[in-house]
Formats: sequence, C-alpha cells, structure tokens
Amino acid sequence: MRELERRIAVARGDLPADLVLENARLVNVLSGRIQAGDLAIADGRVAAFGDGYEGERRVDLGGAFIAPAFIDAHIHIESSMSTPLQFARAVVPRGTGAVVCDPHEIANVMGAAGVRWMLEATDALPLSVFCMAPSCVPATHLESSGAELGAADVAELMAHPRVLGLAEMMNFPGVVFRDPGVMAKLAAAGDRRIDGHAPGLAGRDLDAYAAAGITSDHECTTVEEALAKIDLGMAVMVREGSSARNLAELLRGVTPANAGRWLLCSDDRTPADLLNEGHVDHLLRRAVAEGLDPVLALRMATLNPATHFGLTDRGALAPGYRADLVVLEDLELFRVSAVYRSGEAVAESGALVDEPTAAVPDPGASVNLGALPENPIAIADDGAARVRAIRALPDQLFTPEEIVEPRRENGLLEADPDADLLKLAVVERHHGSGRVGLGFVRGFGLTRGALATTVAHDSHNLIVVGASDAAMELAMRALEELGGGKVAVSEDGVLAALPLPVAGLMSGAPIEETAAKLAELSSAAEELGCSLPEPFMTLSFMALPVIPKLKLTDRGLVDVEAFDFVPLGTE
Amino acid sequence: MRELERRIAVARGDLPADLVLENARLVNVLSGRIQAGDLAIADGRVAAFGDGYEGERRVDLGGAFIAPAFIDAHIHIESSMSTPLQFARAVVPRGTGAVVCDPHEIANVMGAAGVRWMLEATDALPLSVFCMAPSCVPATHLESSGAELGAADVAELMAHPRVLGLAEMMNFPGVVFRDPGVMAKLAAAGDRRIDGHAPGLAGRDLDAYAAAGITSDHECTTVEEALAKIDLGMAVMVREGSSARNLAELLRGVTPANAGRWLLCSDDRTPADLLNEGHVDHLLRRAVAEGLDPVLALRMATLNPATHFGLTDRGALAPGYRADLVVLEDLELFRVSAVYRSGEAVAESGALVDEPTAAVPDPGASVNLGALPENPIAIADDGAARVRAIRALPDQLFTPEEIVEPRRENGLLEADPDADLLKLAVVERHHGSGRVGLGFVRGFGLTRGALATTVAHDSHNLIVVGASDAAMELAMRALEELGGGKVAVSEDGVLAALPLPVAGLMSGAPIEETAAKLAELSSAAEELGCSLPEPFMTLSFMALPVIPKLKLTDRGLVDVEAFDFVPLGTE
Repeated sequence: MRELERRIAVARGDLPADLVLENARLVNVLSGRIQAGDLAIADGRVAAFGDGYEGERRVDLGGAFIAPAFIDAHIHIESSMSTPLQFARAVVPRGTGAVVCDPHEIANVMGAAGVRWMLEATDALPLSVFCMAPSCVPATHLESSGAELGAADVAELMAHPRVLGLAEMMNFPGVVFRDPGVMAKLAAAGDRRIDGHAPGLAGRDLDAYAAAGITSDHECTTVEEALAKIDLGMAVMVREGSSARNLAELLRGVTPANAGRWLLCSDDRTPADLLNEGHVDHLLRRAVAEGLDPVLALRMATLNPATHFGLTDRGALAPGYRADLVVLEDLELFRVSAVYRSGEAVAESGALVDEPTAAVPDPGASVNLGALPENPIAIADDGAARVRAIRALPDQLFTPEEIVEPRRENGLLEADPDADLLKLAVVERHHGSGRVGLGFVRGFGLTRGALATTVAHDSHNLIVVGASDAAMELAMRALEELGGGKVAVSEDGVLAALPLPVAGLMSGAPIEETAAKLAELSSAAEELGCSLPEPFMTLSFMALPVIPKLKLTDRGLVDVEAFDFVPLGTE
Repeated sequence: MRELERRIAVARGDLPADLVLENARLVNVLSGRIQAGDLAIADGRVAAFGDGYEGERRVDLGGAFIAPAFIDAHIHIESSMSTPLQFARAVVPRGTGAVVCDPHEIANVMGAAGVRWMLEATDALPLSVFCMAPSCVPATHLESSGAELGAADVAELMAHPRVLGLAEMMNFPGVVFRDPGVMAKLAAAGDRRIDGHAPGLAGRDLDAYAAAGITSDHECTTVEEALAKIDLGMAVMVREGSSARNLAELLRGVTPANAGRWLLCSDDRTPADLLNEGHVDHLLRRAVAEGLDPVLALRMATLNPATHFGLTDRGALAPGYRADLVVLEDLELFRVSAVYRSGEAVAESGALVDEPTAAVPDPGASVNLGALPENPIAIADDGAARVRAIRALPDQLFTPEEIVEPRRENGLLEADPDADLLKLAVVERHHGSGRVGLGFVRGFGLTRGALATTVAHDSHNLIVVGASDAAMELAMRALEELGGGKVAVSEDGVLAALPLPVAGLMSGAPIEETAAKLAELSSAAEELGCSLPEPFMTLSFMALPVIPKLKLTDRGLVDVEAFDFVPLGTE
C-alpha cells in the first residue's frame, strides 16, 4: 500500500500504526495549545494524534511532553572541532533534529570540495544537516585561503537537495557597492534564501543590504537593531553561542505581531559547551529563563526556522509531518529523555541509540607547509626604531595596535617574554608556498614555549605564538605531523596536542576526547605562563583581517581600518 | 544595469527610484508596526522605505496608509457571473492584488480546457490570478458534467506556474476510504498545497482527511471546528461570501499563538455584492467591526495567504517584495483610494486606471441540448398514488422531501401552481444527449411562467422551474439561443434575461450590467409570483446531489442521504 493511503488508514483507525507514543502531552506549535493524547506514527510520519490508536509498537510516555525536534537556524559545525558525526553524537541526544549549517571554515580550506565533503559526511546521520553555500571564500584579499568559491561553484551547490541557499553574506560593502562577484553569487542563489551577517548595519546601508534579497541576520546585538531588520523583512536569528551571546537582549523585542520572525541559533559552539551546556536545548532554557513563553520559545526553534527555510514537513507535529520529535520531561529545563527521527528512537537518556560509524573517508591531508625558509621565524632588524605589536585582549576579537621596542640580537628582532612581547607567525598551509607572515603580539603572557593552531579564521592558515623561535618551529612541525590541530609546546617538546586531521579543523575522535584534549591544551598554556582564559580561541582570531585594529596574515601585518598592509617597523 | 543592482543602488540612495510614494504610513505586516516615511520603488518592486528618497516620479500620499495589496485565499470567480476581466474591474479598485481561485465551475462544463481558458484569460489582467486544479470534476456519478478532470489532467495543470496545487477536496469519503482516483489526484499535487472542504468533519474522519496532506479548510462554522483543524496543521480560511458567512464566529478563535494560521477568503461573491459591499476590503471591514486588530486583519489578507501558498515575494511591503499595494484612507472602513501593481497605479478612486480589453476569445458555445424529445417536460402518469416533491427553502441548500398529490390531466402529471407545486426539469446541456430529469418542487411560488438557468451546481446543466410546460420549454429555448445564462419568462415570452455565453456561467459584459440584469431577473421572478428572496440562486442549487435531502439531476431524482436515485412516484 502506498504511504499516503496507509497514513490515511492509520489516522482513521483502519490499520494499526507502526508506533504509538501514548499518554503524551503534545506541544502544538501550530495552534499554541498543549494537547493530551497518543501520537500515531506510520512510515516515519505523524499519522494522527488522539485517543485509542492501535500500534505495532507502543511506548507509554507517562504524561511527558512531545515537541518537534529542534532546528538550529545557523551554525558552523566546524566550531565544534568535530566531524559532523561527532557533532551529531553531542546534539541529537539534546533534541536537535536538524541544523542549517554554513560550512564556511572547511570551504576556506578546501573550497567546493569541502562543502561536498560536508554534504557527504552528513548524508546518513541521525540528524538532518542542511547547508548554505558559503558566500565569502576567500573572505578578503589580504590573506591566502586554501581555495576560492566563486559564483559558478555556488550555482552548482544549489542543485543539491540539502543546500537551502547562500550563507551569511559578510561582505556588506560588496553588496551595497554592487561588487560584480558578489552580485553573481546573490544571483546564483536564485529564489532560495540568502542569510545575512550585518552587525550594527543601519540606515541606507542596511536598506541597500535588505534590498539585495538578504532575509535573515544573526548579528543583532540590540532590540532596536533587530526590530529595524524585522521591518525590512528579515528573520532575526537570536544567537547564543560560545562566544557571542545576544539572547537576553533580543528577546525583549518579541511581540505577538512579530513572533513569527524570530529564530533561535547557536552560530558557534565549542565541544565543551555542547557537552556541558547543550545545544538548542540550552537556547530554550535560556529563553524561558528570560521569561519567554515556552511554547513560543519552542516555536522559534521549530516551526519558525522550518517556515523560513521552506522545510514544509518539519517544525511541527501534525498529520503528514516527519515524526522527528523530542520527548521532554518539562518545559522549563527542557530535559530531553528521548529523541525520535522519522518515527524511530535515535537517542535515549542522553546518548544515541545506535552509535553511528563514519561512512565517508576523511578528505585527506590539508597541511602543506612546503619548503619553508631556514629560520622561518627570524625577523631581520631593518633599523626601524620601534615595531607595531598586536595587543591580544581576553575574550575580544578587537586587537589594538601598540608601538613597542623589540629586543635586538645579532641583527635580528627577538621575542621578549619578560616584556610580554611574543612573536607571532602565520604560515600559509594550503599550497606549500612557504609564505610566512611575521609580527609581534602582547597579551598572551607566555614565559616559554609556544602555542599553535591550524584553526585561524577565516583562511585557517597555521598560526603560532611563542616565546622563542625554537619552540615556535617545534610547534609548527608538530602540527604538520598531526595533519593539523592545536599544540602547546615547551622548548623541549609537545606538552599537549589535539589532532584535527579533517581540513585542519575537525577531529573524528569522540567529541568527549576532543573536549578533554582542549582542556589539556588550556592547562599546558597556563603552565607555559599564558594569562588568557581561552588562549587558543584568542589565537585563532589573530589572523582575521576584518576585525580592527592590527592583525597578521600570511601576507603580513594588516591595518584593518585602512584595510591594507602596514610594515612592522615604525618610528 | 541588472534589476538587483539597481534596487540596491536605489535603496542606498545612489540612484533615483522610479517612483516614490511619499508621506505614507506603511502598515508593516511583518513587524506589526506602522511606520511613517516614503516608499521607494524600482523595477516594480519595493526598494526601500525611509526618508528623503529621490524619484523620477513622486506622489504625495498626504499621510495615507499603504498596505500590501489584498489576497483572497479562495474564490470561485465564476460566482461573479463575470469573466475574469470583468471580475478584475470590480475587485482591483477595491484593493485586491491577487486571488487564489478554484475554477471548479468552468471545469465541470469544459474540463481541463476550461481551466486552461481561465489561465489564459487571467494572463494579462491588472490582478494576479492563481489557480488550484479542480479536484472533483465530476462531483458525483449521479449527474452528467460537461467533462471529467482526472489525475493525469491534474498532473498536467501542475506544470503551469500559476497553478498552486489541488483545489478544495470535497470528496471526503473518497479521501478517508482511499478511493484510487482520489489518491491519484492527491499524489498528482506533489508537494504543492491541497485545499480542503470539510464542513463539520470531526474525529477520526477529520484525522484521516488531514493525514492525506490537506492543509486548509474554508468550511468551518464554529470556533471549535476551526481550532481542531488548526491543531491538525490546517490553515483556516475565514469565509464571508455572498451565501456562507462565518467570519464573526470564527474570529473569536484567533489568539496570538495561532494568528498565522488564519486566512481571509470570500469563496463566492455575486456581482451585486462585489459592487455594493466589496471584496477583501469588505472582509477587512467586517473583521475590524468584530473587534480584530486592523494590522492583524490585514495580515490575514496579505502575509498569511502568501506564506501559506509559498508566494514569497507577496503579502508584505519590504525590500524586494512586489510593489503591489493599496493606499488606504483609514484602517476601519478600509477605504481604498489607489491600488498599485508592480509599482504602477492600476486603480484610482474606485476605478481602473486603464480599462483592460479582453485578450482571449470566448471559449465557444457550451449549450447543446441536442435532439430533445417532443414534449420534453411531459411526465406520464404511471399510476403511483403520490409523488416526491423537493421543498425549496429561502437561503438554504437543504431541501426536504415532501410527498404530495400531483395534478393529473390526460394521463400526465402537471404542475399545480395553486398548490405551489411546480415542475422542475434538469436538461443535460453539454453533450446533446437529450437527457432530461423531471420532478416537482414546492416553495418557488410561481403562479405563471418559468425561471431557468445554466448555472446549476455542480454539473451546470440547464435547470428550469415553471408553472406550465409551455413556459418551461420557452425558457429552455431562450437559454439555448443565448448560449447559456438566466431567463425569466411568462407564457408569452421572455421577461428578463442575462446571457452568460462563457461556458453558460460567465458574461463578458460590464459587471455593472450583469448586476443590473440580475436585478431585473429578480423583479421578473417576483412579478411571476415567486416568493423566494433569491430565486435564481435557490434554483441553481436544486441539482446539487451532495446536499440533502431530495435533489434532481439530468439522470433523475436523487435521495442524497441514500446517495442514489429514487422514483418520482410513491405510495
């Protein structure tokens, strides 16, 4: 019997359901009501909700709530430093049924091949992973990414059934000044969604940005900004990630009239935060703690994102919808006792029912340092009186410029740990060009050793900070050997390491192990004298030439305000 | 310059807009806010809303409101007895920008060719006409329609860009008992919308109906029924037409949580009601008079239907949306002073700016009575003691059965106007079969003459009621000559006539003329002794074999409860 006929027959009670979840309280995000009864499931979809349905299998939920599985409207899976499979292991037991991801990081390393790898790697997970095609690869001309993703690539990706549109368009000048390449990418999205990224954009520039067909934003930090964007037809993604946390402020703007225009998203979540705090369940807890009605909070994590992205059979539990659902003990702490996907239990009591196995091979080596110069970290003393140094600040992406006296030795400029002046190097790692950008940094506080990572936004070259050239070279070589990752080294050897062999960004190891190794790296950094709370996160943003003031890429020091290179030496 | 770039440039203020509507108060159905400012339009779409935009043309709205053009979620244009062009003449000046129509009536006469004619006839109007493919043609096996519309026809129609899905599925037994033909039509809709029609359906049958993927209903008459359907994922279309009026009752069910699930629709509107009361503007007036917030009322006639039907660039006024809008003097009476379509004024002060001209030829003759028997109205006296008579009631589709003594003369059964017993005949008019169904009716009160129409739901055969065989024959022949329509005749000749040459359902004459002729027909009916308030509407439903109790088709008397034919004579 065809699926539709069978579903009708089950709904009418003429045939038994495959599964009946009985004694449930259904959170109906369509009507806003909570209904008591039994959910009948046939062929992976909701057949009916009511009383007295027969089923091949029956599960008594004892009055627990059921709600649609959660949808994260915007996330970079790479921030979990875990492969999608490991990411799914962490988030599915938390109630996440679908995510809309922007594979921006892997695309910067591997281009369209990286996006295709993400699509393949998410093909058979107990989690629906939708992708937006990255819009800004490379992010700037001031750095060397692993690949470019042009309008033709974007157009090709749009043909994939799980690609929903164009990912966060960070290049707002490119939009408002109608850069031809940006225009071509917008056009390639066709009538699909285009996600925005426009922190603080206002006035005519915001008007122009909205006129480009960009219909969401997850960078709002004030209610006024959010409401202005809603007026312009944008869905506002309320973000509460590991770094940026805007939920409490933004939820003040929710009204009955605009309630359909808000979606919850996490953007970036570290392994530890995913494991300790949670994923969308954490957003829901936070929202309700801030006073939002729990059914409305659930709607913002289910029906609203599904509607925004045109996922017509998700985001609600009504006849014909996918039986993707969570069993919740309560609507305050959102404790998830079970998760169903297409009518099958995929997680129970905080763990997946069936441990999935990696079905796709890793995409291959991605750290190619090539023939580096001898003494790649050496900085010749060109006689300038002083040098520019980047000032790293705890938990901030903003990096002031400081003008300092370097230590001089044998015609070279050296790190001076006693003065908290360390060397920073960005090594092009994609094409083996041997290109190294060199500079100085303050604020890390290392007294010895070095820290290095191949996670360095947006181009993800190898970045290393150290108290000595020797330790820095050792760290570089260690990462090369690991095929990417993060290391903390002393002058004598590796103290702690996290291999991230997938594009130098992600690990296929159990996410718990990844979280543990990150903790070890933090301890090792502390041992080396580092005073920053999250040294590797701070380090990973030192090469991001879109956040003022002074940054370093493989091509040299960048004055972000001038959007151009500046020499190291100065008056 | 490409449209997108130009729109961005206009929004940014780098280029002048095509048109600036200045000094407006924009009703923003996305945010629920009303904003003061100027609307900048480029290439037929909204570029921006703000202050100080330059424009090639400027119109000062003097503080008037602007709102998205209205969308009627469900209507049968044929009920206006006017061609789509004439319908547009009536509704566009009232603020209607788009309708979702079910060309069910013309499809019953002409099949898929009728639907294609409607699509062609609506191709170049100042109104967007979307179609749902009729789902129930013929409606029953108890009558003879002009054509059948099978699943293959439905599938073919789905390819048209303005066909949005499958029209109201009236055959609920076919759905819940999984009739193969019905299943094939549901399947043919693919992932497009399927509209429902399920008055009073509840319990397991409603569950089954919803499980079939039917996601709207416009037949709710109580709040409880509407909320039950919303729980099941249906959008509830709040109907207030010329016959059925459910708005006041249903709006009591609107809550902040379910506000997105309600759409306004008119279903059926007579020419006089369109001209005198209005169209969607009338629904809005009624809704606000019932206490609904005007912005929410507007949302139910703009954004909600657009979202439901996936019309992503309609239903709101924000950058990138079509500049289809109404200028409103107020938000209580919804007086429309101008209507814009793609940024051009199409109506001002209650009339179209440019009188459109019919671009498509009429679809050809559709009244073919063939070789009728001599004395087609004669009923032989077969000796039965009494006969069944249909009881026509004012303003009701329900028709009780009465058992009466007919008048007998020369071996024939005759009408007996003195006893309010008239003859009723349904003449198959599509295929020239000569088939005539004969019976008796009470309640019309004609003392002489006859009334006839080719509008007779659902098969639209020729139906005639009369005090004498001679007058009835005269009426039939008059309609044959007109090529369809409505006539009131005395025994001496035609008193009043409305030609409906398009499928016997619609007239291409000015809709004001059609309304005037309908009034003349009512007067003529009154003159003939008719006591019903709307005799032609009552007559048009006498052949509808889905509303109990007794009806007449070209195939004979139907006991609707038994869903089968019954003989005229009885004990």
